[in-house]
Amino acid sequence: MNSLPAHVREKLSAVSTATLCTALFKRGLRNQFVQDVRPVNAKPHNMVGEAFTLRYIPAREDLNPITVFEDRAHPQRKAVEECPAGAVMVIDSRGDPRAASAGGILVARLMMRGVAGIVTDGGFRDSPDIASLPIPAYHKRPSAPTNLVHHQAVDLNVPIACGEVPVWPGDIMVGDAEGVVVIPAGIAEAIADEAEQMTAFEDFVQERVLDGFSIIGLYPPVEPQTQVDFAAWRAAKGR
Amino acid sequence: MNSLPAHVREKLSAVSTATLCTALFKRGLRNQFVQDVRPVNAKPHNMVGEAFTLRYIPAREDLNPITVFEDRAHPQRKAVEECPAGAVMVIDSRGDPRAASAGGILVARLMMRGVAGIVTDGGFRDSPDIASLPIPAYHKRPSAPTNLVHHQAVDLNVPIACGEVPVWPGDIMVGDAEGVVVIPAGIAEAIADEAEQMTAFEDFVQERVLDGFSIIGLYPPVEPQTQVDFAAWRAAKGR
Amino acid sequence: MNSLPAHVREKLSAVSTATLCTALFKRGLRNQFVQDVRPVNAKPHNMVGEAFTLRYIPAREDLNPITVFEDRAHPQRKAVEECPAGAVMVIDSRGDPRAASAGGILVARLMMRGVAGIVTDGGFRDSPDIASLPIPAYHKRPSAPTNLVHHQAVDLNVPIACGEVPVWPGDIMVGDAEGVVVIPAGIAEAIADEAEQMTAFEDFVQERVLDGFSIIGLYPPVEPQTQVDFAAWRAAKGR
Amino acid sequence: MNSLPAHVREKLSAVSTATLCTALFKRGLRNQFVQDVRPVNAKPHNMVGEAFTLRYIPAREDLNPITVFEDRAHPQRKAVEECPAGAVMVIDSRGDPRAASAGGILVARLMMRGVAGIVTDGGFRDSPDIASLPIPAYHKRPSAPTNLVHHQAVDLNVPIACGEVPVWPGDIMVGDAEGVVVIPAGIAEAIADEAEQMTAFEDFVQERVLDGFSIIGLYPPVEPQTQVDFAAWRAAKGR
Amino acid sequence: MNSLPAHVREKLSAVSTATLCTALFKRGLRNQFVQDVRPVNAKPHNMVGEAFTLRYIPAREDLNPITVFEDRAHPQRKAVEECPAGAVMVIDSRGDPRAASAGGILVARLMMRGVAGIVTDGGFRDSPDIASLPIPAYHKRPSAPTNLVHHQAVDLNVPIACGEVPVWPGDIMVGDAEGVVVIPAGIAEAIADEAEQMTAFEDFVQERVLDGFSIIGLYPPVEPQTQVDFAAWRAAKGR
Amino acid sequence: MNSLPAHVREKLSAVSTATLCTALFKRGLRNQFVQDVRPVNAKPHNMVGEAFTLRYIPAREDLNPITVFEDRAHPQRKAVEECPAGAVMVIDSRGDPRAASAGGILVARLMMRGVAGIVTDGGFRDSPDIASLPIPAYHKRPSAPTNLVHHQAVDLNVPIACGEVPVWPGDIMVGDAEGVVVIPAGIAEAIADEAEQMTAFEDFVQERVLDGFSIIGLYPPVEPQTQVDFAAWRAAKGR
Repeated sequence: MNSLPAHVREKLSAVSTATLCTALFKRGLRNQFVQDVRPVNAKPHNMVGEAFTLRYIPAREDLNPITVFEDRAHPQRKAVEECPAGAVMVIDSRGDPRAASAGGILVARLMMRGVAGIVTDGGFRDSPDIASLPIPAYHKRPSAPTNLVHHQAVDLNVPIACGEVPVWPGDIMVGDAEGVVVIPAGIAEAIADEAEQMTAFEDFVQERVLDGFSIIGLYPPVEPQTQVDFAAWRAAKGR
Repeated sequence: MNSLPAHVREKLSAVSTATLCTALFKRGLRNQFVQDVRPVNAKPHNMVGEAFTLRYIPAREDLNPITVFEDRAHPQRKAVEECPAGAVMVIDSRGDPRAASAGGILVARLMMRGVAGIVTDGGFRDSPDIASLPIPAYHKRPSAPTNLVHHQAVDLNVPIACGEVPVWPGDIMVGDAEGVVVIPAGIAEAIADEAEQMTAFEDFVQERVLDGFSIIGLYPPVEPQTQVDFAAWRAAKGR
Repeated sequence: MNSLPAHVREKLSAVSTATLCTALFKRGLRNQFVQDVRPVNAKPHNMVGEAFTLRYIPAREDLNPITVFEDRAHPQRKAVEECPAGAVMVIDSRGDPRAASAGGILVARLMMRGVAGIVTDGGFRDSPDIASLPIPAYHKRPSAPTNLVHHQAVDLNVPIACGEVPVWPGDIMVGDAEGVVVIPAGIAEAIADEAEQMTAFEDFVQERVLDGFSIIGLYPPVEPQTQVDFAAWRAAKGR
Repeated sequence: MNSLPAHVREKLSAVSTATLCTALFKRGLRNQFVQDVRPVNAKPHNMVGEAFTLRYIPAREDLNPITVFEDRAHPQRKAVEECPAGAVMVIDSRGDPRAASAGGILVARLMMRGVAGIVTDGGFRDSPDIASLPIPAYHKRPSAPTNLVHHQAVDLNVPIACGEVPVWPGDIMVGDAEGVVVIPAGIAEAIADEAEQMTAFEDFVQERVLDGFSIIGLYPPVEPQTQVDFAAWRAAKGR
Repeated sequence: MNSLPAHVREKLSAVSTATLCTALFKRGLRNQFVQDVRPVNAKPHNMVGEAFTLRYIPAREDLNPITVFEDRAHPQRKAVEECPAGAVMVIDSRGDPRAASAGGILVARLMMRGVAGIVTDGGFRDSPDIASLPIPAYHKRPSAPTNLVHHQAVDLNVPIACGEVPVWPGDIMVGDAEGVVVIPAGIAEAIADEAEQMTAFEDFVQERVLDGFSIIGLYPPVEPQTQVDFAAWRAAKGR
Repeated sequence: MNSLPAHVREKLSAVSTATLCTALFKRGLRNQFVQDVRPVNAKPHNMVGEAFTLRYIPAREDLNPITVFEDRAHPQRKAVEECPAGAVMVIDSRGDPRAASAGGILVARLMMRGVAGIVTDGGFRDSPDIASLPIPAYHKRPSAPTNLVHHQAVDLNVPIACGEVPVWPGDIMVGDAEGVVVIPAGIAEAIADEAEQMTAFEDFVQERVLDGFSIIGLYPPVEPQTQVDFAAWRAAKGR
């Protein structure tokens, strides 16, 4: 899984999920922000990586005694050992946080293996421990019960739903303090480029606004002078 | 998919989903009733058949133009032509009825192919037409929008969630006027046998109650005389 | 439990829950309509009776094996045998219809004992059977699983919540095809009288409206002529 | 409000909301089906008419005593007397059915004035009475409490939300047994024409399917022979 | 919009939303606390100001391309430039946080214009940026997608719903670390006076409780000695 | 209420709710974690204590004027003065946070009386004040309105629901930064012992994982060497 060139990863590390959502909207993609999922603990840099997915279905009691994890090929444990370095593990928990999607030990193992982050639309257990790890982790809310109560892992790396959004294996996941956005793999570079340009303009606008300017004519820049001023600002800032 | 012997199918046709749920509960299976799903139109006989599953994820706009159905291998259309006669098509719509899981033409085609029924935890479009067909159909509520708005078919015959319940391919689906229950394939015959026995007893009890008897000692039959009376009733009724 | 005089019961049988809600609103009672609960099968006459309550809490697995009903003093079974004739059994199921609040046999027994009706903010199992009984029954939706999965009976005849509404033992429950309203015991007669008067006026208004009159001045009767016409109508109708 | 020519109204009377949703989807309009709203009682013909809107906000106790309806200019009563014949009254109840959006007398008055139907994303009181009237009425569920408990009418004929869908005054509302769809006024004729054509094709397909044909190549008609057969069918049927 | 005298504003800055809710409850106003809305970042002082409202309806795709903001009269942008200094912008987002109600640039502009705060029952994008600004902002949760996905601004300064509560233009909005309360304009001074008195008493009670006193007789002060002690406390504290 | 020996309390203070949930799961108890409830402010040590319960039903307006608290025997105030030192007050608020379950003064009084903590599945008012007190408090979200708006206290120390979980008086409540778990009184010591052992193993595993080991064979310890290593680790750590 080396589809994500370093320069694209770098650009995506420096833009916000809000800006990325607008870039996606311009291409007709309206539903790429993972809904109702938040960082366990905000990190100073964005999470960026290709999606490696894990799919849960509701647990059936006879198939989910505590002993299932003794199976070395159990999909959840396999996922943790197979998720590529640099990727983001994304879990389809059907939006159900009543039992954990994963816990502190598995998240720590992912981190040690170089995984870039983990996202679930359910909840993590050991969330206070996870909050203290450097790896970015996103969930709906803390959830102490073992996943065996409600979740059974069945598939690795198939298309899934996460937070009401489609996630295809290899899609680029970007997370900041606001949440997580999913970028279709094929347009990741184009989106990164556009978002970088948009970010420069938004930074310029924010500066202007904090200097007291009105947004009318400035944002969007329908006033021709805005374009002139922005060009000067870019030159001055070297952006 | 001929795992379901005719005599088991027949027994399951003559018991209620309520009785089946209790038989499953006795074996520790507490979560096998498809939640919040109802018949489009109640039928005089139970729906019975092996689960043939179809999995949806949220639709992405660029992957779901109206033209996708021109692809003869589109999973939704493939599912309709491949679901075995006697089976029940079960759709994981993530509990989302905002767009249709299927419509009248596909349901008619399933019926013509001998499929035993269709279940979704989303909604059907053309629901008034479907209500007029003899094939049993269960959903959450009517939903006119095309499935392309919110659902993309991705998999056939994998384990899924439907109505917050696990459905494994080959599980036995039974539906009555109350709803749909999922019986793990391996215990279908045992459950059918037990439910048949329980139904005889419940019919006996209901008769007694309508004759004015108290339920104390009768239901459950902790009063020894109840067992005697039940044996006599069975003999008299030939059950 | 003979707090409800026959003439009050009769009056309450002939007015709608909508009219009763307005009479209650005039006394400052805004939250007496049981929310999201509907008849299993509409009956030609209103359900009327004093509330006899049953309170459920979430079931704990070790306390709720299938054998608990062998205890003749189990609160659910006790409730069914103790609910007075003429009363309405009201069950606090915490609004949770994932498992049954009661089933066909218990409802049949209540009917045989002369109970006036049964209301739960959960669901009934055997709902097709219950629909065929003459006793009025109100619930959220059908629910086949045994109550042992999610509900444990703990109290009889204590104040409860049902459908987000307070129900005190002895309150008067009235149900029609629209739903169920709770009238505090102490004002039942006054409310019945007022609702009877309001019903006469509403019937008069409906007749006028179907004759083509505008509602302005008629409903409410701020036009003095309306009062004159209504008096004439009452005289003519003998109401 | 005579924007809707009779021939368009007629065409819209003879197509389904499902077909209309697909025609709208082809134009990029994905969210025009009023969610979670159903007929109080299904009618043999479609409801068709221009939207005349009424907007509610949450009621404040001091502004909503029972006496407010004595004001002849109260927006709710004004709406009932001003909604044009042939139009459909559409109420924004914020999706809240805990108190009524309107009751039997007001709906009867609308009917007498020639109004084509009424839609709310809340609930109606007197719903059994409304079910017996010939005017189509759509709501979420029955609701006996007076609207004063939760709803205050503030605006007539402004853009609103209804069932999570935008409704602009003059948009064309079409309702069948499945639900209600909103067609932007400017494209109503084009949509009606397209839906009429689609309906002919769908009827042809349904006939073929019930004759045993596979949907592959037929629906959509990627098999050239399908087009030939359809042309022959149209000629034979005079459609 | 200078309806709010400085001394009232000052009093409202020094009392809690909890105390204000009780003062409103005493006047029969039970539903004035904006539900499920929280500060993006708690501020040391209360937000206080007159409500200036903005109303959204669901977005329709053809009316909401990215280019709409080029219109200098677009209601959202107009709102940002017209909301009076000292007022609080209150947005009716129908409780839907799936797309943003506003973002960091607009909030910064409001702040620069002297606006006292911003409240939505949806979500803000750029929420980490907004959290770093001194202006108080309240929402349901962060939401990166552009508002064009789900929200279309249609009205300025009309009565709205926000967090299931009625907000009339000119009502006084007060926000603290707990949330936001809406005070009808006409009673703002009376409520401020009462809340100031109540706060003195509550501070006295809290001190007593932390000194080990029982609440019985103290809170409420049914023990006569409590009144004597409170008078002494006020004298000593100069309150 | 001295059922909880000091050494059990101490053990429960040093393990996580996640570990306790797994120990309970091994005994077949799947639903003991209070759902959707979080600390008002995380504390360095666990909350541990026997449950002392308070049950609310929906408030009825005529029974809940502001004057009810003048009654010294009002159940809510009685609860605050009677909850034993060392116990945890647990409130059944029916999961409804629209009005407060309790406020800062009552929580302060509980703290002064030596109560170990307070849990509600509703919300607290004065939550910023409560956050500054040393007593642990758990709720769904802040809620400024007085409890009289929606809650009426009716019972002390009966079995209740809290966060969809059964709580029996005397059950042991344990809370950490993740949430609150309920341990049936009769197995508290056994669960504490098991959790203590599990915690040692989990700490060992976490150390190994952070040293770079794979989880396969380690967690669970199906690799025999893991048991050897763990024994050595325990000896070295003195655990």
